[in-house]
Amino acid sequence: MHRRTLPAAAIAAAALIVDRPARAEPETAVSLASWGSFHVGGRLVELSGKPVRDVVFTPGGVPAKVDPNGTYMAFAMYAQYMIPTKPRAKAPLLMWHGGGLTGVTWETTPDGREGFQNYFLRRGWPVYVSDAVERGRSGWSMYPDITPGEPVFLTVANPYERFRIGNGPGSYERGTTLPGCQFPADKESYLQFTKQNVPRWTTTDDMIIAAYIALLEKVGPSVVMIHSQAGLFGWKVAQARPDLVRALVLLEPAAVGDKAQVTALKDIPQLVVYGDNISADSRWPIIRARGVEFAELVRRAGGSVDVVDLPERGIRGNSHMMMMDHNNLEVAGLIQDWLTAKGLWA
Amino acid sequence: MHRRTLPAAAIAAAALIVDRPARAEPETAVSLASWGSFHVGGRLVELSGKPVRDVVFTPGGVPAKVDPNGTYMAFAMYAQYMIPTKPRAKAPLLMWHGGGLTGVTWETTPDGREGFQNYFLRRGWPVYVSDAVERGRSGWSMYPDITPGEPVFLTVANPYERFRIGNGPGSYERGTTLPGCQFPADKESYLQFTKQNVPRWTTTDDMIIAAYIALLEKVGPSVVMIHSQAGLFGWKVAQARPDLVRALVLLEPAAVGDKAQVTALKDIPQLVVYGDNISADSRWPIIRARGVEFAELVRRAGGSVDVVDLPERGIRGNSHMMMMDHNNLEVAGLIQDWLTAKGLWA
Repeated sequence: MHRRTLPAAAIAAAALIVDRPARAEPETAVSLASWGSFHVGGRLVELSGKPVRDVVFTPGGVPAKVDPNGTYMAFAMYAQYMIPTKPRAKAPLLMWHGGGLTGVTWETTPDGREGFQNYFLRRGWPVYVSDAVERGRSGWSMYPDITPGEPVFLTVANPYERFRIGNGPGSYERGTTLPGCQFPADKESYLQFTKQNVPRWTTTDDMIIAAYIALLEKVGPSVVMIHSQAGLFGWKVAQARPDLVRALVLLEPAAVGDKAQVTALKDIPQLVVYGDNISADSRWPIIRARGVEFAELVRRAGGSVDVVDLPERGIRGNSHMMMMDHNNLEVAGLIQDWLTAKGLWA
Repeated sequence: MHRRTLPAAAIAAAALIVDRPARAEPETAVSLASWGSFHVGGRLVELSGKPVRDVVFTPGGVPAKVDPNGTYMAFAMYAQYMIPTKPRAKAPLLMWHGGGLTGVTWETTPDGREGFQNYFLRRGWPVYVSDAVERGRSGWSMYPDITPGEPVFLTVANPYERFRIGNGPGSYERGTTLPGCQFPADKESYLQFTKQNVPRWTTTDDMIIAAYIALLEKVGPSVVMIHSQAGLFGWKVAQARPDLVRALVLLEPAAVGDKAQVTALKDIPQLVVYGDNISADSRWPIIRARGVEFAELVRRAGGSVDVVDLPERGIRGNSHMMMMDHNNLEVAGLIQDWLTAKGLWA
C-alpha cells in the first residue's frame, strides 16, 4: 500500500518548494530569556475495590507491589513555554492543538521546516504550547474507571482523507491529493505526520476546558490560537473567562462555542481561517458553515469576527493542517498581520 | 488524606532553599541556533476483522466513519532539540527518562526551578529530550492488539514511597520523608510531580531500544544520560551501537545491560550515580548492587565505569529523582565535571 507515486499536483508543489518563503527566510538565532514547562489543573480521583498486583517494571528487576486502589491525579495539562529576550507582543500567545494530536502540531513540520511556534517566537511572542488533557505529556487515566468512554485510534489513512490532503475516500491507497495540495504529502513526510497522531477521547471536553482555564489563570491575559477540535475550547473558554483572552485566532475550528453566550465574546477580536478545497469534501462545507454562522451570531451581539477563506486571498491549496503546509509561513504572516492590526504587536 | 503537615526535615530543607545554588545562579538569556522536534523509528502494523464505528469527535460535530481495520503507525518516538548558538560540548547530549514518566523529567522541576535540560543547555550542550515509545508525545497504540500486555497506572502515593522521598510504606499518608530528603516534597510540588506521571507498559523494551537506536542514528554519536528504567536502554543500546555512544551517564539505573556483551562497552566512559538513603529502602539496596555488579563486569572487560554514591561526596538527601531535588544543580555540576574530565566539553 505504500508503493504510492507522487501525483502531478504534488510534483508541481515540490517544484515550488525551492523558492517558498520558508526556505528563503534566513535562519537566525533566537535569544530566550527563559524556557520551561509546568502542568496546570487536574484533580484527585479515588478508586477502590481493585486487586493488588506484583509488577516487574523492568526485565530482571525487583517486583514491586502495585495497589491500584487509592488516589490518582487526573486531567492535568502540560504546557511548555519559550520567552524571547526582547518580546514585541502585547500578550503571550497560547497554541491549542486539535483532536488526536498534541502540541507537536505547532513545532517543526513533518518535512522538517519551521512551524508556527518558531515563526511567532522569532517575532517576539512569548509562546506557550500545551498538550490537551489525556494526550501527550499531559498523560491519561484509567478508563472507563476515571476517564469515561474509550479512546479513538486513527489509521494512517484516516487523516489523509479527513484533513483534506487526499481527494476523498481511498485517496491514501491511491496516493492522490486534492488540487494544488500544500501539505507535504510525500510518503516520508506524511508518515512522519502520522507519528504525531495520538489516541483521543470524545468524552473529556469539560476536563479540557477546565485545564485551559487553569492555564490562562496562570499565564494571564493571552492571545489564544486554536486548531480544529480546539475551536470548541477556544470559544467556550473565552466565554467563561473573556477577561483572560485578548484575541482568538481560530484555524478551521471543528466545533463552535455556546450560541446562548455569544455576548461574552463581543470585546474579543476574533480571526477565523479556512483553507482550500472545502467544497470538494463531504464534511467540511458543513463544518465551515457552522463556524461562519457562529461568527455571524457573535457579530450580531456586537462582536468583531474576521472570517478569512485563504483561497479568496490568493493563498491556495491549504489542507486542514495549514500550520504544516508548504506555505505555512505565508499563513502565519497573515495571522501576524491581523494581530498587528489589532494592536497586539508592535 | 492531604491534611499533611511538613515534617521537621522538610522544614529544615525549606529553610535551606533560600541560599541553594539553584537560586543563587543568575538567570541569563540563552541564544539558540535552532530548536524543534521530530519523531524517529516506528513501524506500520496491520489490524483486521474489527467493526466500523461512527464517531462524533466533538459535541454537535459531524459524525465521521472510523474503520479500525487498516494500517497503524506504532512504536515511533518523539524527540525535541535545542541547539545553542555557541556549543562548547564535543557531542550532543541525549536525555532518556525513566518508567512512568516522559521527557518532562529533565525540564523545570516540580517546584519551578530549572532542571537538567536548562543546566546543560546553558553550558553549551546541544540537548535532545525524548519521550520513550508509548509515552508522552510518542503516543501509544491499541492494546493488546498492537502493544502486548496492558498499561500500569500509579497512585499519587506510589512514587512518594518507591522513589525514596517518603520513609517507607504509608509515608505518603503520614507526610513523612526520609532523613534530609532533598525532593521538593511539599504538597503543592509533589502533586505537580504526580501530574508528570503517565501510564507505562512493561512489555515494550524491544520497541523502545529500536527507537533509541534510530534516534542515535539520526543525531549521530552522542553522550547519553539515562534515568532509572532507561538504565536497561542506555546500556543495551550502547552494546548494540557502541560507535554512536560517546559516554553514558546513568542516574540510578533500575536495570542493567546484557552481561554477556560487556566487552562492547569497554571504550565508552560510564558514570553511574546513586543518591542517598538507599540502605533505608526495601528495594534499592538490591537494585544498586546489581548496577555495581554490572559496572564491575564492564571494568573486568577493560572498560571504565565510575560509580558515585552522592553521600560519599558529601552530597546528601538525594531521592531517586535527583534531577528535581533541591540540590539538583549540584548533582548536574558533578556530572558536568565528569564529562569535562572525559574530554567531552571545553
